[in-house]
Amino acid sequence: MKVWELGEFGLIELIASIVGKPSKHDLILGIGDDTAAWRAEKSIQLGTTDILIQDVHFSLDTITWRDLGWKALAVNISDIAAMGGTPTYALVSLGLPQETEVDSVVELYRGLKEIAKQYKVAIVGGNISRARMVIVDVSMIGEAAKRLLTRSAASPGDQIAVTGYLGQSAAGLRMLKSGLKLDKKTATLLREAHLHPTPRVAEGQILVRYGVKVAIDLSDGLISDLSHICKASQVGAKIWTNKLPIHPSTRAAFKHEALELALSGGEDYELLFTAKSKLIDKVSSFMSIPVTVIGEIVSNHVGQIILVDKQGQTVKWSKRGWDHFKSPRRNKM
Amino acid sequence: MKVWELGEFGLIELIASIVGKPSKHDLILGIGDDTAAWRAEKSIQLGTTDILIQDVHFSLDTITWRDLGWKALAVNISDIAAMGGTPTYALVSLGLPQETEVDSVVELYRGLKEIAKQYKVAIVGGNISRARMVIVDVSMIGEAAKRLLTRSAASPGDQIAVTGYLGQSAAGLRMLKSGLKLDKKTATLLREAHLHPTPRVAEGQILVRYGVKVAIDLSDGLISDLSHICKASQVGAKIWTNKLPIHPSTRAAFKHEALELALSGGEDYELLFTAKSKLIDKVSSFMSIPVTVIGEIVSNHVGQIILVDKQGQTVKWSKRGWDHFKSPRRNKM
Repeated sequence: MKVWELGEFGLIELIASIVGKPSKHDLILGIGDDTAAWRAEKSIQLGTTDILIQDVHFSLDTITWRDLGWKALAVNISDIAAMGGTPTYALVSLGLPQETEVDSVVELYRGLKEIAKQYKVAIVGGNISRARMVIVDVSMIGEAAKRLLTRSAASPGDQIAVTGYLGQSAAGLRMLKSGLKLDKKTATLLREAHLHPTPRVAEGQILVRYGVKVAIDLSDGLISDLSHICKASQVGAKIWTNKLPIHPSTRAAFKHEALELALSGGEDYELLFTAKSKLIDKVSSFMSIPVTVIGEIVSNHVGQIILVDKQGQTVKWSKRGWDHFKSPRRNKM
Repeated sequence: MKVWELGEFGLIELIASIVGKPSKHDLILGIGDDTAAWRAEKSIQLGTTDILIQDVHFSLDTITWRDLGWKALAVNISDIAAMGGTPTYALVSLGLPQETEVDSVVELYRGLKEIAKQYKVAIVGGNISRARMVIVDVSMIGEAAKRLLTRSAASPGDQIAVTGYLGQSAAGLRMLKSGLKLDKKTATLLREAHLHPTPRVAEGQILVRYGVKVAIDLSDGLISDLSHICKASQVGAKIWTNKLPIHPSTRAAFKHEALELALSGGEDYELLFTAKSKLIDKVSSFMSIPVTVIGEIVSNHVGQIILVDKQGQTVKWSKRGWDHFKSPRRNKM
């Protein structure tokens, strides 16, 4: 059997079964959440890694080297944010074709440095290899206090909320790939969403501080990422499609595709979290970005997500997120 | 300017200058040693990452998937060993062509699991991506007590010692690539050295326990790795070529090339360390593998390595180790 036949989630399950449950006494979370987590003396240490491969995850036709550096670190910081942690140290594995311009590498590192500075991350090492295409693989260490945001603590009765807007990054990618001309403001908004995402570290910390227990960052797409929570928590979910926070500019530019982009677009790097309604109101009041309730956790149809429209009718939906071997995403173990 | 024109060490210096010295108060070592190191409450945490890219660092014609898994973790464990630390957690970024057999991935993980078990490492996460070739990028966390083995503490008067044998891995690679037929015992010895290296964790810990301050693992080749120590410590070095520990089988199989393989072959993953003569005798007595004194640290010709033969004559040597953009190695930042 080929890996594309088994599919990526099947492969991850298979790998997890080979690796087994490590017997380290200080391990809190292994394969299966946004980051691994282990106990240090007074804190919890977090570890995660995410790779960007040229012509799989990005094209040098549409991203600058500087944005590539930014994004490579951003996607990792976002995983730490999804645990409610603080990013601390980063290591960068770089694969470069021999013909790469030194100036391009300088720009890449300026992008890495820029976001590292903004999030107080120290780039402390890595390695460089010759490669046939550009590869940027960042691994990141983070720190958390006593509690974490996990995927496995959602309960029926929880509401489902997201920070920011959905589908913007995928709309940006579609615009860049198709060469679609949009008004300058919209074009900038969508381009930035795709090439220069903002990890929600402060927001993740607010969640954990006030007692939220469940979060994931939206990297694969809403449906795919929410199913990770549903499977890990052994619950189901309902999404109210008319509640999805789609930015007016995204809706205007992609009228017929906006819903699909919001549901399965991916790479928004917003936080999805679940909690009781009152707690969501409370944490929202401390955030400077919009928070929208988009659905609820239910006890039936475990692992499944039901889409419901304004009229209360179930929406048929076949495209339940990406499987990596059929799509351009990487997927977390 | 292209990266191959600048060369890899030039590129690393450039990158280090962009990244700058991070201002984290708990950072002990950033770019420039075998691993990064930062202070936790009671211990020192170590972080490192090393990548293996198909047809750059390995060929599936000569390595099995299982050995590939072993080696991907081994090269990272070796970096932790070179600090005198204990490896603890590993994250694995995997790039796979869609046509990869699921059985191959299972074998890869069996190899990863095998070495992880042997060295008590927990594989706690990672990610899988579609890629045009196989990529295995491991990042590894380790732990150390109060002291570390660094590259920057060598002093004139120190002797230079290595564990095990030199040039065996490169001899193995040469044998595998050329299809050279050797007697079974030699073939097995050289193949294992190249495909199934043994990181020297116990040995690194003995070094640090008895007060050795300087070590590096031999990944790029003796001359290249020793120059890292010379540059970081602002010293020079003399190597006595007739003292190099070359296994009789390597010498028999590669009569004319044995010295070159030992000096610049790379990937032996033995430890090179420097200390006063008496201390070397002491630590050697606690090790179950041979330790050989091969030279001495000197105060002149800073950053340079002089090769001296049996007669005390300087040996001319142009091939001073690999530059990554002209060779199939990755290089540590």
